[in-house]
Amino acid sequence: MKFSFRPVEGAFYDLFTKAAYNLVKGTELLNELALPGVDVQSVSDRLSDVEHDSDSITHELYKKINSTFITPFDREDIYSLGSQLDDVMDHLEAAGNLLYLYGLTDLPSLPREMHELVTVLDQQAKITAEAMPRLRSMKGLEEYWIEINRLENDGDRAYRMLLVRLFSGEYDALTVLKMKEVVDELEAACDAFEHVANTVETIAVKES
Amino acid sequence: MKFSFRPVEGAFYDLFTKAAYNLVKGTELLNELALPGVDVQSVSDRLSDVEHDSDSITHELYKKINSTFITPFDREDIYSLGSQLDDVMDHLEAAGNLLYLYGLTDLPSLPREMHELVTVLDQQAKITAEAMPRLRSMKGLEEYWIEINRLENDGDRAYRMLLVRLFSGEYDALTVLKMKEVVDELEAACDAFEHVANTVETIAVKES
Amino acid sequence: MKFSFRPVEGAFYDLFTKAAYNLVKGTELLNELALPGVDVQSVSDRLSDVEHDSDSITHELYKKINSTFITPFDREDIYSLGSQLDDVMDHLEAAGNLLYLYGLTDLPSLPREMHELVTVLDQQAKITAEAMPRLRSMKGLEEYWIEINRLENDGDRAYRMLLVRLFSGEYDALTVLKMKEVVDELEAACDAFEHVANTVETIAVKES
Repeated sequence: MKFSFRPVEGAFYDLFTKAAYNLVKGTELLNELALPGVDVQSVSDRLSDVEHDSDSITHELYKKINSTFITPFDREDIYSLGSQLDDVMDHLEAAGNLLYLYGLTDLPSLPREMHELVTVLDQQAKITAEAMPRLRSMKGLEEYWIEINRLENDGDRAYRMLLVRLFSGEYDALTVLKMKEVVDELEAACDAFEHVANTVETIAVKES
Repeated sequence: MKFSFRPVEGAFYDLFTKAAYNLVKGTELLNELALPGVDVQSVSDRLSDVEHDSDSITHELYKKINSTFITPFDREDIYSLGSQLDDVMDHLEAAGNLLYLYGLTDLPSLPREMHELVTVLDQQAKITAEAMPRLRSMKGLEEYWIEINRLENDGDRAYRMLLVRLFSGEYDALTVLKMKEVVDELEAACDAFEHVANTVETIAVKES
Repeated sequence: MKFSFRPVEGAFYDLFTKAAYNLVKGTELLNELALPGVDVQSVSDRLSDVEHDSDSITHELYKKINSTFITPFDREDIYSLGSQLDDVMDHLEAAGNLLYLYGLTDLPSLPREMHELVTVLDQQAKITAEAMPRLRSMKGLEEYWIEINRLENDGDRAYRMLLVRLFSGEYDALTVLKMKEVVDELEAACDAFEHVANTVETIAVKES
């Protein structure tokens, strides 16, 4: 008979993993925006659904924190990690939602640099989802946070190049303002992935 | 004879409560901006006064932390809560002050969605002020932070609708830029109330 | 024979001091932008070099945290302080870099209020660099964080006046947008210095 000494712990890792895989769904939806003839309203609606799922996962996590006597690591860190994973989703959803609300999809095409930023987000989501189960063994996490930081630097560069493009005179000032709102949400998502990685690093440093 | 085992503790709860009631003064001043023929300079000046009061309260709190041997909960959490209450006020004051500095009051009227956002802030301030004394018993705090989060979602929606309105083409680009500064401060205040609630939740989780 | 009880500790203070003196290099480079006929590309490139140095120092600090058994104060606080010093540099570098990328240097001159903000940053950098070695004795730190907060208030005022200037109608909307990006980085650097001071205060409160 298999016996687990800390049967409840698993639930925490599962919830972090679920939350992170939900982010992959989010970035994949944003990736669809690069497709020709995409239905932006549908992308925006599906992002809202995925965001509601994230809220439920976060809520379940908080309930689990409050009802569990011994947690696998500091309660505050579990709390931070949960809310930071949720923050990423909020920014992903906001980006898709604003793009639709502002009618930016009437533009012939979105700037190429915007898709580059989404590609970075998609990679960040994937390696975050792969890293979460490794919290259990605390192994192989260093590569994860080094890679997230490297991607965040890529994202930063893509963001700056995107701003240069927006301000090039190609678009009128109001369109620039609208796109900037969307782009800032994408950049905030990129930073938010880094916050997740920093918390994982803090947890690993404490446990080591 | 009544005897208090921890006579100094009360001072902390009183200062948090005072700080939060000061925020109610702040949001009520912003509410005045919806009145016809309002004197915006006077609102801005009175907001600055209220903001100075907040600074004094925060300063008194920090002095109390440093001079008290046993604090009712972790020093760092007291410190965070104090500085986060102060952050809310900074954003409220900035919103009123920028509105005046930019001469936005020459507009026939401010967008209705801006007043909706202020209404959310006013509700957040009131329930925060009511929650602070409850830190003493740690009872009834869950409703408070659930409600703050619900209001923050309302605020988020109001903020997005306000941006859609700003970018609708009704205003010229420079006016949009100015209003956006004001609106971003209001939105930051809305988020800052949520940070306060998150810290209260962290404290409650530790104490439970 | 001199004998140090905690020989490794010194390395932490040295790294914080090095990181802070690197920030002085950063603000001095930004100060050059006020000079007539300045080569902005060269300033931007040298800022990037200084930023790489900061990254190396931060990396060395993190390695030191992970390889040291007894740290002079909480690991998380050392970690926070290191990453917050690094954040300041990121904002300084971004400001110089964007100024160059956006071609803002074709303007006859940058607004005077922008140089005022840089002057505040330069003062913040200098007193931060002077304060870091004092972490060893935990003496004379209170003056430092009071002064940083005072300077942050000065910076805030300079920032608001700068926005009023930007929105005065003197510049076209796209130029305003570009300058605002630069100015926001400067203001974020000013805030980031305050975050450093807050962490120093948190450490001092814990140690007292």
